[in-house]
Amino acid sequence: MEFKYFKKIKDYNYGDLIAETEYWLILLAPDQRNLGTCVVALKRLEGDLAELKEEEWLEFSKIVKKLEYALKCAFNSTMFNWGCLMNSSYLKDLPDPHVHWHMIPRYKERVEFAGLIFEDPCFGSSTMKAKGGIRKVAEDVRIKVIKEIKDNLEI
Amino acid sequence: MEFKYFKKIKDYNYGDLIAETEYWLILLAPDQRNLGTCVVALKRLEGDLAELKEEEWLEFSKIVKKLEYALKCAFNSTMFNWGCLMNSSYLKDLPDPHVHWHMIPRYKERVEFAGLIFEDPCFGSSTMKAKGGIRKVAEDVRIKVIKEIKDNLEI
Repeated sequence: MEFKYFKKIKDYNYGDLIAETEYWLILLAPDQRNLGTCVVALKRLEGDLAELKEEEWLEFSKIVKKLEYALKCAFNSTMFNWGCLMNSSYLKDLPDPHVHWHMIPRYKERVEFAGLIFEDPCFGSSTMKAKGGIRKVAEDVRIKVIKEIKDNLEI
Repeated sequence: MEFKYFKKIKDYNYGDLIAETEYWLILLAPDQRNLGTCVVALKRLEGDLAELKEEEWLEFSKIVKKLEYALKCAFNSTMFNWGCLMNSSYLKDLPDPHVHWHMIPRYKERVEFAGLIFEDPCFGSSTMKAKGGIRKVAEDVRIKVIKEIKDNLEI
């Protein structure tokens, strides 16, 4: 069970670990079109949000509060989109979803960080797709982003 | 305060009431591209998900479970997308967001209901935008959709 869970987390490639709580992993997402985009993934095998336990919901609620605060301090994010989708898993013949949340910081103004410019041209819209595909950033930038978030995250 | 809250709920036009719990309203969304799309809106003035109280989170978690079950029974939904966005409010000069969740049932197979066909051409994708704009349905269809959900919703 433990092995299957770790394999799944690895296969899904949610990103680089920022912090860990009892029930959740907080990771920096591979797509950094919106600076500081995170994934919050459940630390056990479960594919249905409806099956979360009370203690997992309550801990998630604390992560929402602390992660929003950290992102505001770190990058002056204007507001946040939270979504639990799990769509892509259902393209497989045998869907194998895993409960995880996307946390997408949105920015009214552009942000400069580590010598790069991050914009949010679709601010105010539910889409972030104006610029096409995902935006990966170099490892040294990811390390700086993670440090900045961790320095403001009380977990 | 009470008046301001009701005015806001009316202005936002989340849809038609399906059910009500202590802290949340469950409504049938105006856009029915995906049959049974709902909005779950908080019953007090609050614009930041981070500020939800424990009891509001726990009641929301029960709604997730019961509403997913009801939609599966009613329309054989394959799975569900949940999102708390509140983007459009931030297009205003003075943003006035209100905490609400979008619950979007997704369908691997097309559904027939009340003589209409509902498809989900972007099943497996985070977008539902293939067919362009929103899809409104006639009042008699909305009444039937709401009845079908209520008949399966233990709230």
